[in-house]
Amino acid sequence: MTNDRHRDLTRALNPKSIVVVGSKKADAYMWLRNYATFTAGPLYSVQIDPNEIPGIEAMGVTNFTSLMDVPGDVDYVMLAVPRPVAARVLADCAKKGVGGVALFTSGFAETGEDEGIKLQEQLLQIARDGNVTLIGPNCMGLYNRRLGIRQSAEQGHGEAGDVGFISQSGTHAINFGLVGEQHGVRVSTSVSIGNCIVLDVPDYIDYLADDPETKVIAMYIEGVKDGPRFVRSLRRAASMKPVVVWKGGVTDAGARATASHTGSLATSQAVFSAIVRQAGALQADSLEDTIDVVKALLYASPSSGGPLAATGRGMGLMAMTGGQSVVITDAFVNAGLDVPRLSDASYAELKSFFNIVGGSYQNPLDMGGTIGFGGSAGTLARLFGILDADANIDAVAMEMASGFLARMWAANPASLDGLLDTLAAHRDASPKPFVAVLQPQHVEDVVHQARMRVQERGIAVFASFDRAARALARAIDYHRFRAGLD
Amino acid sequence: MTNDRHRDLTRALNPKSIVVVGSKKADAYMWLRNYATFTAGPLYSVQIDPNEIPGIEAMGVTNFTSLMDVPGDVDYVMLAVPRPVAARVLADCAKKGVGGVALFTSGFAETGEDEGIKLQEQLLQIARDGNVTLIGPNCMGLYNRRLGIRQSAEQGHGEAGDVGFISQSGTHAINFGLVGEQHGVRVSTSVSIGNCIVLDVPDYIDYLADDPETKVIAMYIEGVKDGPRFVRSLRRAASMKPVVVWKGGVTDAGARATASHTGSLATSQAVFSAIVRQAGALQADSLEDTIDVVKALLYASPSSGGPLAATGRGMGLMAMTGGQSVVITDAFVNAGLDVPRLSDASYAELKSFFNIVGGSYQNPLDMGGTIGFGGSAGTLARLFGILDADANIDAVAMEMASGFLARMWAANPASLDGLLDTLAAHRDASPKPFVAVLQPQHVEDVVHQARMRVQERGIAVFASFDRAARALARAIDYHRFRAGLD
Repeated sequence: MTNDRHRDLTRALNPKSIVVVGSKKADAYMWLRNYATFTAGPLYSVQIDPNEIPGIEAMGVTNFTSLMDVPGDVDYVMLAVPRPVAARVLADCAKKGVGGVALFTSGFAETGEDEGIKLQEQLLQIARDGNVTLIGPNCMGLYNRRLGIRQSAEQGHGEAGDVGFISQSGTHAINFGLVGEQHGVRVSTSVSIGNCIVLDVPDYIDYLADDPETKVIAMYIEGVKDGPRFVRSLRRAASMKPVVVWKGGVTDAGARATASHTGSLATSQAVFSAIVRQAGALQADSLEDTIDVVKALLYASPSSGGPLAATGRGMGLMAMTGGQSVVITDAFVNAGLDVPRLSDASYAELKSFFNIVGGSYQNPLDMGGTIGFGGSAGTLARLFGILDADANIDAVAMEMASGFLARMWAANPASLDGLLDTLAAHRDASPKPFVAVLQPQHVEDVVHQARMRVQERGIAVFASFDRAARALARAIDYHRFRAGLD
Repeated sequence: MTNDRHRDLTRALNPKSIVVVGSKKADAYMWLRNYATFTAGPLYSVQIDPNEIPGIEAMGVTNFTSLMDVPGDVDYVMLAVPRPVAARVLADCAKKGVGGVALFTSGFAETGEDEGIKLQEQLLQIARDGNVTLIGPNCMGLYNRRLGIRQSAEQGHGEAGDVGFISQSGTHAINFGLVGEQHGVRVSTSVSIGNCIVLDVPDYIDYLADDPETKVIAMYIEGVKDGPRFVRSLRRAASMKPVVVWKGGVTDAGARATASHTGSLATSQAVFSAIVRQAGALQADSLEDTIDVVKALLYASPSSGGPLAATGRGMGLMAMTGGQSVVITDAFVNAGLDVPRLSDASYAELKSFFNIVGGSYQNPLDMGGTIGFGGSAGTLARLFGILDADANIDAVAMEMASGFLARMWAANPASLDGLLDTLAAHRDASPKPFVAVLQPQHVEDVVHQARMRVQERGIAVFASFDRAARALARAIDYHRFRAGLD
């Protein structure tokens, strides 16, 4: 990225003044509502329709009938005007010298129709001639949690997050913010980038790679215009922080859908996978999967340990019944991790207190006969200690049996805290990554609340063994890549 | 299965009298509580410990100090005694001529220890000599929903279900009942079969194949003793009704875990997969996946259509945004289904009213610009009609966008009913299978409630595109197998 582009994007994505052009009653003044939480500077409206202006002013927003009338510098413009006038207002943006423009308006090349393609060419010309930092068109623009600039009024705001997100889908951008928040994954800067006619994916990757607030980068992309440049940006970013890539349109029919969506061209999935892997980035295949990987990267890694601790693949597994011991083992092995036998010292210690009837401690540890949640925090801590000391074990995964948990919580809410204290103490003290699994089972509503409590302690908790296993495996892959292994 | 075995199992699994041996305060009289909903005949207790008897009698259950003292015929015994006395009480069961015995007690061959192996041999000898229909040991026995005989007091009872379940894990048996119920999947007869020292998997398959209450058979198995017999039973059952097989211990380490769990020997996963496929059964890889496939088999198939309608693979896909259109397409293609272009007639009709700006109707139909939930039931019905009439389309999948749904429901709960009426009317009238997707997203608690409402209408609704796609693909596979295709 040139220094100019970086400077322009920094200004546009961290604005001190915002103008929304074209806010209207039909969508309940969506953009003004999305930005109502922006307090770092003025928020203005530009709207020429006299029928719309009273509603805008009723929201406490000052309206102008031309962008040229807006006082002072404008760092960020959300352009939500009808398609036929988009080019004219974009020309105003150029004249005004605004920091950046996010163009919400759709109906351009993604329609596949001549009219839309022609109009998009026109936008490109204006943006180039006027040196406009143009995000989109056909996009939901910026989500900056700290600044309260949102893609949806449901998204959170306030404290800065630490995950950057780049998305060729507005829906996925909004949902990454909304769903991520439910999983302890909060956004630093997220950009819905739409058709990418001026700024392309690598521009945003470069920006987030250099952004000190962003610890992990994730993205949903359907296609890139300049392959080699994408690879360079991806490789550079992945050498600085973990990068997770979710590619949409991996099948032929899916690629046909991306053409209708953002006008992106298809790339063979095999080629794309190879590119991502060689760049040291990680792949994901759905919103949930992307959030899972980010969660593992943020929370499973030991808070105090060095990189070496997180590069081994030997899992210590803990389940509450025999059936789940089998399933958790299959899940982690299928994800490419190992479930080795423990050391002789571990077996000797386990033998001294483990109840072999109705249980087993081969690894997995089938703890059902040995601990029940609630009264056995000491025994659980002892099991953690044994796995911590075992040189065959590099990371630990534990089933938090939903049914047990729900009954325990119903009977004595405080006892859940005791369990969480034990898990949090292990996570804080151990150099080995730790993940918990809390499956929805038949107590989905309770589990949802319980998961929030687990997350508040900074524990990486997943909705199934498979999801935990696949997420942790990729987090470990990242640390192995950084350590020059594989 | 011999006629004798079938007769014995029919008696044991449909008992008119039950005895629990060894119920105790330490587990809160678990088995008596599990069977408290059994009302088809007497429920007795056998317990010799005088300290336990008052608690048993306080539950309104008559206790005897010997099985031989129990009056009348005994069809089903749950044996939950300490390991050292299991053999002696089993001998009593033989003497009494009981219908069947489920042996909850564990600590036999699955421990891998000499003592346990020896005790198991002893049980086998007694059962053989006395011709005892022995379920287990190391099992949770029977769940018969209609008779109120349960593996856990949380399981439902009352109306008969229509799905049979066979499980080498007690946990998975319990959870199939509990979680299945949350997904409209209700059990006819479920048996937790444990170490299978007398009755083996094929016995239970044969029974469920012949059981008129059971429409679909599902199972969790870790290993079988007699491979050829298993294949014969599986093939016979699959020729009569759909059979779903979830195999645990598919990895080497997982197989080690099964050895500790039920003493099962490993079978190569590739061999096992080939066996299941050739028998015409369907594979699943987790509890959720098993429930998903059963759900698709029960609810996605047209209520009125013939088998031919459910054997085509051409999907008509409906999503609410461009980003989701891409993802739903990838999901269904990855599951082995097709997403063809529509017929010219369909495109002509769609063109007459579909909003191409912010939408697309190539297939997938990106409906965001054309319908919003709530006020557009007529438009939605029209889209269904177009897909119904299109010869390229064999089945339909639709995104029920969680965020839209949650907002709509919050604003006007009755409007959800209008939407559900439209879906149910389509499902009832169309000969083409239909599945809906309602992803948890950021509104997990609302979605959980909404899903229940959708299910009540008999609509197959799934938690993600991938799950819907994989489940439907296997349901179609089954109908293709039955039709002699592939």
